[in-house]
Amino acid sequence: MIFMSDKAAFEKLEMLGKNMLAQVKNDKSPTFETPLRSKSNVQFEEGLGYLRLGAKKEERTFLNVGQARTFMQTVSVANKTKKFVKEGLHTSIRGLYYQLKFSLGEDVDESLFEEQSESNVLVEDLEVALGVKREDLHLTTDRKGVVAGAMVVKDNFAGEETTIDCAKQGRSGWMIPSDVDNGMEFVEVEADYVLVVEKDALWQRLNEDRFWKKENCILVTPKGQASRGTRRLLRKLADHKLPIYVMTDCDAWGWYIYWTIKTGSMNLAYLGRDFSIPESRFLGVTMADIEKYDFLKKLTINAKQVDLKRAEEMLGYPWINRHKEWVEELKKVLKTKKKIEQDALQGERLTFVGEYVREKISKKQWLP
Amino acid sequence: MIFMSDKAAFEKLEMLGKNMLAQVKNDKSPTFETPLRSKSNVQFEEGLGYLRLGAKKEERTFLNVGQARTFMQTVSVANKTKKFVKEGLHTSIRGLYYQLKFSLGEDVDESLFEEQSESNVLVEDLEVALGVKREDLHLTTDRKGVVAGAMVVKDNFAGEETTIDCAKQGRSGWMIPSDVDNGMEFVEVEADYVLVVEKDALWQRLNEDRFWKKENCILVTPKGQASRGTRRLLRKLADHKLPIYVMTDCDAWGWYIYWTIKTGSMNLAYLGRDFSIPESRFLGVTMADIEKYDFLKKLTINAKQVDLKRAEEMLGYPWINRHKEWVEELKKVLKTKKKIEQDALQGERLTFVGEYVREKISKKQWLP
Repeated sequence: MIFMSDKAAFEKLEMLGKNMLAQVKNDKSPTFETPLRSKSNVQFEEGLGYLRLGAKKEERTFLNVGQARTFMQTVSVANKTKKFVKEGLHTSIRGLYYQLKFSLGEDVDESLFEEQSESNVLVEDLEVALGVKREDLHLTTDRKGVVAGAMVVKDNFAGEETTIDCAKQGRSGWMIPSDVDNGMEFVEVEADYVLVVEKDALWQRLNEDRFWKKENCILVTPKGQASRGTRRLLRKLADHKLPIYVMTDCDAWGWYIYWTIKTGSMNLAYLGRDFSIPESRFLGVTMADIEKYDFLKKLTINAKQVDLKRAEEMLGYPWINRHKEWVEELKKVLKTKKKIEQDALQGERLTFVGEYVREKISKKQWLP
Repeated sequence: MIFMSDKAAFEKLEMLGKNMLAQVKNDKSPTFETPLRSKSNVQFEEGLGYLRLGAKKEERTFLNVGQARTFMQTVSVANKTKKFVKEGLHTSIRGLYYQLKFSLGEDVDESLFEEQSESNVLVEDLEVALGVKREDLHLTTDRKGVVAGAMVVKDNFAGEETTIDCAKQGRSGWMIPSDVDNGMEFVEVEADYVLVVEKDALWQRLNEDRFWKKENCILVTPKGQASRGTRRLLRKLADHKLPIYVMTDCDAWGWYIYWTIKTGSMNLAYLGRDFSIPESRFLGVTMADIEKYDFLKKLTINAKQVDLKRAEEMLGYPWINRHKEWVEELKKVLKTKKKIEQDALQGERLTFVGEYVREKISKKQWLP
């Protein structure tokens, strides 16, 4: 089945080739232009609320000794993914790499790519230059997030249509796929809000309590850092006007998970709005919680160097230090040199996690 | 809902306590006996085909300065998990740790556990000593495997019954839960065999090809090293008399994944038969494949030290070197110093992976 986006991606890839061909016919060196993906070109605009690339561009041209190889590689990635789109087949960036490695022809013993890292960056180049997602280029990505709640999805895949009711997935939940856009339709999203918990262990805990049913929410765990699929799903749910509440550990890794969901990260700024949810709110765990709940005092952990270093860094980012609540929070970390995990919320009784979330939301006790 | 196994686990935990009480009443020091879990007590019996613990036992007694703390900790883990079983609630071993940390009472400032590693080993002790799984003690575990295919499961969970048809899970598949025993019923298993592929990327590839439908098989990926849930699921499918074929990278990590599924590992020998599938067969990727398929020759990678070291080690294990096919395979690795990934099978055409599996199975070209 050819989806609308398949057609769009195909046309963009074809246009790229046609433009190059036109340049050759006009006796010009074919060129490829893409926004610069270095940190110097990463911008944050308050009005938008996410990290994105600025106006700086990079041009590659075939008739340049230093650029000819990369140019050729870029064209080969575009050509191969165009083939995948046409065939209607998907593979991973590792599969792409293996297809390209010796694609210079049977008689040529030299490899077009030595390492997968070479082809990976070109996939990113193409995403930015063409304004498509790698998923649209039929490249699958790592997936690990899970969902339960009041959401029904229609999945058109491999010629079959499947209806997935995320309220009827038992103990397992629905595994968030690599691509939640092409061939996916969110037919019913009846929840009041989305709760994202960093750890699968806590997701399992809340799922056993049927928390999402009692609260009429959608319960998501990214299982650590959110995959591309999970970030896209959250973006789509935010577009459905659902509040997105995130709950992580109160430590370097937890904050990173939250801020990558909210604004994106420096390295992934090229993904822009499609993968950011500036509307997200941070429910906890916070340093203030340690003061508020007696039993948590005993369950803190000494912050590690990486936590303190990260807190310092975050205080320097304009998209974080513009929020006085976060400045206060991070300064408390630096002062007390303590941290706390979300698992500790179970210290007194297992069902406390749900009570905690309910109280936080009803009293609007979140950080921006 | 109380499951049969809940009742059994509860009774075993209660018996443990009652026996200790009886010892106290008889003016004896209460004791706790558990099979020794060190490597010196790991055994392999050809007839059984998996690693297990031998007859050596370890006894802990309360009235011994060196053992009193551990003894008390053991009793506290037993007591707390008994409470979980009674309440019908589950948590992770991290959640258990947080509940136990300061369980000596409000007036006692000393913690019962300093690190989670302390409580983790005691959970293992209890599993072996009582002959229960930690899942039976209401402890959830990390999960990451995924399934698609001709299998229907009834999931009794949190007071609800859900029917999961693994042939109707679209692009996502069914996420293998932490516990596939308690409250789980495999109502239909109509497949001819089970195919386990190490990597999720390849699972996604084969799922797109509807490989499991065309072949009437069950397609599983552990996503790397198999979780406890995945190993239990495979054990149950093998008990259903389904052949289990495993496909991994041809490297140290891939072999480790296979052998842990098949015989268990030295560290996890205490799990025994419940988590081993001696019936498993290794489909590939093999060193012989490199000779057989021309396009693979160019896609090999230089073996790393860790691969060569692992191959040497494996040649020393009696449960591996009794198979001449594996000795041959590992010697080829040591001689050529090459390895190859399963992703490379897509090098020529994306759909080749399925053709490869079909040929291997129809020609019985597997390793034991």
